[in-house]
Amino acid sequence: MYIESNKNPKIKNLVKLLEKSKERKSQRKFIVEGKNENFFALKNGFVPIEFYIQPHIFQDSITLPSSAIKYEVSQSVYDKIAYRKQSEGILGVYEYKTYELDQIKLPDRPFILIIESIEKPGNLGAICRSADAFGVDMVVVCEEKADLYNPNVLRSSVGSFFNIPIISTNNANIYDFLIKMDVPIYATYMTETSKIIQNVDFTESAAVIFGTEHSGISDFWKDKIKENILIPMKGQIDSLNVSNAVAIVCYEVERQKIMLNKHL
Amino acid sequence: MYIESNKNPKIKNLVKLLEKSKERKSQRKFIVEGKNENFFALKNGFVPIEFYIQPHIFQDSITLPSSAIKYEVSQSVYDKIAYRKQSEGILGVYEYKTYELDQIKLPDRPFILIIESIEKPGNLGAICRSADAFGVDMVVVCEEKADLYNPNVLRSSVGSFFNIPIISTNNANIYDFLIKMDVPIYATYMTETSKIIQNVDFTESAAVIFGTEHSGISDFWKDKIKENILIPMKGQIDSLNVSNAVAIVCYEVERQKIMLNKHL
Repeated sequence: MYIESNKNPKIKNLVKLLEKSKERKSQRKFIVEGKNENFFALKNGFVPIEFYIQPHIFQDSITLPSSAIKYEVSQSVYDKIAYRKQSEGILGVYEYKTYELDQIKLPDRPFILIIESIEKPGNLGAICRSADAFGVDMVVVCEEKADLYNPNVLRSSVGSFFNIPIISTNNANIYDFLIKMDVPIYATYMTETSKIIQNVDFTESAAVIFGTEHSGISDFWKDKIKENILIPMKGQIDSLNVSNAVAIVCYEVERQKIMLNKHL
Repeated sequence: MYIESNKNPKIKNLVKLLEKSKERKSQRKFIVEGKNENFFALKNGFVPIEFYIQPHIFQDSITLPSSAIKYEVSQSVYDKIAYRKQSEGILGVYEYKTYELDQIKLPDRPFILIIESIEKPGNLGAICRSADAFGVDMVVVCEEKADLYNPNVLRSSVGSFFNIPIISTNNANIYDFLIKMDVPIYATYMTETSKIIQNVDFTESAAVIFGTEHSGISDFWKDKIKENILIPMKGQIDSLNVSNAVAIVCYEVERQKIMLNKHL
């Protein structure tokens, strides 16, 4: 089927799904733009409902499942719905896929990231990229403010969002889960007794909590953590962008595991 | 003086300076919003020309030099010129300050970051934060695409932009400088022979180049580097957001220096 008009109800609904978290949540659908992004969504078992394709731009380099309806759209329609207007040529509409905590298969000594109340979709997307790159076993977004399926999260994750077990829940749920699994909880909450990260043994199980861009972790966690940890810094401003702090901790965990394997 | 109207020529010019890189470059002026940001700009010797203050929001917690003209503005004017409308209450207009390479005082074994053709202001701002936090000796932005004085760079640097020696130049200039100073050049350019960063000795002098978000470093550098280095990764997508990659390398350099000092 070919859609030429921006006023087509399908297109109007796409714009709603792109712009409104409430619509995504009530329809339980979200949108994936781009070739790589759709490739990873399909590869990782996300279920597509529809594809919108601009045939002059889209190169048929990924196989689209026949179960989903394909619409071809005019350039003017594509310009309305796509962020990267001149490239890619494909948008997919997918069903929500939500994991529960006990559905995730964790290894013996898991490394878990807990991201509390993060606000900026771009930061969450960059965190997904680090989690994928360093093989983090689970990412838990608590008390979510940036909707997981916000198009800016997916875009800035360059598709890695689909490659990682990512869960949205509240603080109490993930806390109970960590206690049950006997995973020690660390927080990047600076106190006089905080330990620098290279002196923490990350070759064992660990869950590390990162707080909001503005105010750090919430009071909920402050009496529940095993140890406060810090990244050694020496500048006039001694704080980092939250996604950069996450990346450094993921790297340090992986560095310690590589060192351990060398010495085994 | 009190400015009530959005049509005041001063306000019209502020909007131009906020929105247009060309205007900033031809007027050699840029705008700093926020208390912390103005505090660090003043502390680090940037020269203010004017301040625009919304008196109901601004708390007089920083001392403004008497050499700069102060205007009070109405809430409606402030809403037009400020990004963070309900907080801060202060915008400063400053003179451009540009460093030349030979004006920067470097220590014996400097660590230099070279950022080539970076496109996203938010990434450059986050890089400034890491450079400040880890005490990088010089940041060189080559073949600049994101204007250094873009308000998004300054904002996402949370003021750290003003704390670091940051230079904009072209590839040939910085290359000649590094050769003259005998600083080895590393690039995060993945090849079969790339060395993982924890196996590179960063306690000696080093300059590390990072390329664009899309295509990495340019051909200019490919035959000029001492060693290709990489951050060990194991995901389905093995690349990081550029500011995250920079943060990890800065952390690793600092980690090695801390280890060395412990053993001396």
